Amino acid sequence: MRNEGKPARILMGPGPSNCDPSVLEAMTRPLLGHLDPEFLAIMDETQELLRRVMKTRNRLTLPVSGTGSAGMEACFVNLVEPGDRVLVCVNGVFGTRMADIVERIGGRLFTVEAEWGKPLDPTAVEAAARACLPKVLAVVHAETSTGVLQPIEPLGNIAREVGALFLVDVVTSLGGCNVDTDGWQVDAAYGGTQKCLSCPPGLAPLSFGSRALSALEARKTKVQSWYLDMTMVRKYWGTERTYHHTAPISMVYALNQALKLLIGEGLEARFKRHRLNHRALVAGLEALGLSMLVEAQYRAPMLNAVLIPEGVDDRKVRGTLLNDYNIEIGGGLGPLAGRTWRIGLMGSSCRPENVTLLLNVLERILKAHGVPNRSGAAAAAEAVYAAS
Amino acid sequence: MRNEGKPARILMGPGPSNCDPSVLEAMTRPLLGHLDPEFLAIMDETQELLRRVMKTRNRLTLPVSGTGSAGMEACFVNLVEPGDRVLVCVNGVFGTRMADIVERIGGRLFTVEAEWGKPLDPTAVEAAARACLPKVLAVVHAETSTGVLQPIEPLGNIAREVGALFLVDVVTSLGGCNVDTDGWQVDAAYGGTQKCLSCPPGLAPLSFGSRALSALEARKTKVQSWYLDMTMVRKYWGTERTYHHTAPISMVYALNQALKLLIGEGLEARFKRHRLNHRALVAGLEALGLSMLVEAQYRAPMLNAVLIPEGVDDRKVRGTLLNDYNIEIGGGLGPLAGRTWRIGLMGSSCRPENVTLLLNVLERILKAHGVPNRSGAAAAAEAVYAAS
Repeated sequence: MRNEGKPARILMGPGPSNCDPSVLEAMTRPLLGHLDPEFLAIMDETQELLRRVMKTRNRLTLPVSGTGSAGMEACFVNLVEPGDRVLVCVNGVFGTRMADIVERIGGRLFTVEAEWGKPLDPTAVEAAARACLPKVLAVVHAETSTGVLQPIEPLGNIAREVGALFLVDVVTSLGGCNVDTDGWQVDAAYGGTQKCLSCPPGLAPLSFGSRALSALEARKTKVQSWYLDMTMVRKYWGTERTYHHTAPISMVYALNQALKLLIGEGLEARFKRHRLNHRALVAGLEALGLSMLVEAQYRAPMLNAVLIPEGVDDRKVRGTLLNDYNIEIGGGLGPLAGRTWRIGLMGSSCRPENVTLLLNVLERILKAHGVPNRSGAAAAAEAVYAAS
Repeated sequence: MRNEGKPARILMGPGPSNCDPSVLEAMTRPLLGHLDPEFLAIMDETQELLRRVMKTRNRLTLPVSGTGSAGMEACFVNLVEPGDRVLVCVNGVFGTRMADIVERIGGRLFTVEAEWGKPLDPTAVEAAARACLPKVLAVVHAETSTGVLQPIEPLGNIAREVGALFLVDVVTSLGGCNVDTDGWQVDAAYGGTQKCLSCPPGLAPLSFGSRALSALEARKTKVQSWYLDMTMVRKYWGTERTYHHTAPISMVYALNQALKLLIGEGLEARFKRHRLNHRALVAGLEALGLSMLVEAQYRAPMLNAVLIPEGVDDRKVRGTLLNDYNIEIGGGLGPLAGRTWRIGLMGSSCRPENVTLLLNVLERILKAHGVPNRSGAAAAAEAVYAAS
């Protein structure tokens, strides 16, 4: 394979993040058959670890055999039948994707929107929910396209009040900040492995609570996707062990190890680490005269969208970072393309040395681009670390 | 993770097969971003390797981000719209699964059937195709549930005559016997990585020819699956490089390496190896007095279904093989549950030492079960190897 022997990229984009070597190493474990009792034990253990990380007691908690978007599709195709009303909160790419999926299922789509970079207003969500009385209310926790961290708990209350299932995208938030599935009355949630879980992309943790299960069992039509049909997938991951499709064995090994590292670090310690590095990064960026897209109280710590200064060539800067410094950061999406950089601080990538390195390099590059800026980015970050 | 330090299983079931250590090792390569030019180069190379293994010049040849069943679903959801007539050949689990998927799409399903363990009769397929004039004619090449290898070329001619798209499941055959996508006029094919490609499960090679592309472009409705929508996925794997979903990076590394090993061995040499080990295994099984489910000329070399002798406890024998000898073989599915064992000889698992070991162990176990049998299983296999 090409690029062998080159140093590893420092992944500070919107995901994937860097993996701990032990997570990659886990995939070298020889394969087991998907019905081998030894593998079934690993599945059980992985599910239990997932429940701890997702803070849920939901029996149906398992990794879907696809990336985060497969998790999104799995939630909607299982819970929505043609004609069902669905209210989707849209303030970025992933809310937009949810809406697209609802239409493909033949659901009756309602949306409540906020400007990209701003959170949804609970009052607007409540009004929309009362008006359309949806079967499902869906929202993204950490919008990867903008870096907005949506307060979830108030929306969970609204969903209960109008009798809707509450569906939450935790792809980017899971493992990097608090995701309290049961405490927030979330009925269905899905994540991804390649963000704050710091596992390679390829699996989507999914959890359905009892109300979601009741909706699944009350369906009048078959789930439109055979591959993602939880009425069957759950029998493989549950006690029946009925063969459905061959599980991605090696990816499950990797996820198992990544979750063990996470539990070993401690959820609260991990969230604190993400908040601290986020604060240090923001302090450094602001010392450079840069502005964040999102208002302070709504910033997702693991996805930092910063406005690109006037006159700076987005692609050129990202190209220099990648080619000269081996650092990946993300560009903007949709209306924010060319207007923002997205700096990820996820899982194993979320470390003081990465923050310091990026700030130093960015300071140098922006200077070379003739941007009038203040210096001392790394020092500003250092002050945050010192005060912590 | 549990089971560490234990010897690796010898995987001689219906898949996964054992992987070459270099394939597992490939996954320890540090992650690259899914839009990193270095990763895009690996994608290009992987596609070109896939084209060689699938014997096609189809531009749209790529690994779907899911297991073989996701490949199946991807083909149907992209090529079939509600109301479209589809003729599915059914003689085992995977034809049955195809039919299920067609119904979930709202396609008009027609089937032509054969007894499990027998191939489809081309005359019957032709009559059915002429009667229903389907948009898609679908068939499984190597039926993993029975071990039947269906002659594909005659069915390709029928599909052309009736103007149908020809869709072929090559999950189990790909990399183990000839799969001539272009030569057989196959319009759409999908495989799996964990059979004769000897890569971990998690990707599904897929190839669409120009007629399939035309059908995709002429669709009146959106593809019902967002995740598997080839109108978008192809733009990420094609020159546009438009982000769709994050590719399963590490799995692509593994597939790239597995395909390189395959090309290094040579397609014809690999097919010959599969045929030889298959013949040796069958000679040994017959020396034990066992009978194969499938008539000699229709046997898939990589999946050997053998009838369980009267009075032998299926689960007990497979349990002894797994627990005492570390060997996995498969049980029967559907109407063949308890009636057959399925012995896989796939990719890296397809080796004389595995054949010899299994025959010796099986001879011993059957004797212990008091089955009246002849001995000399390994010697019979040896004779086949000696004569080759």
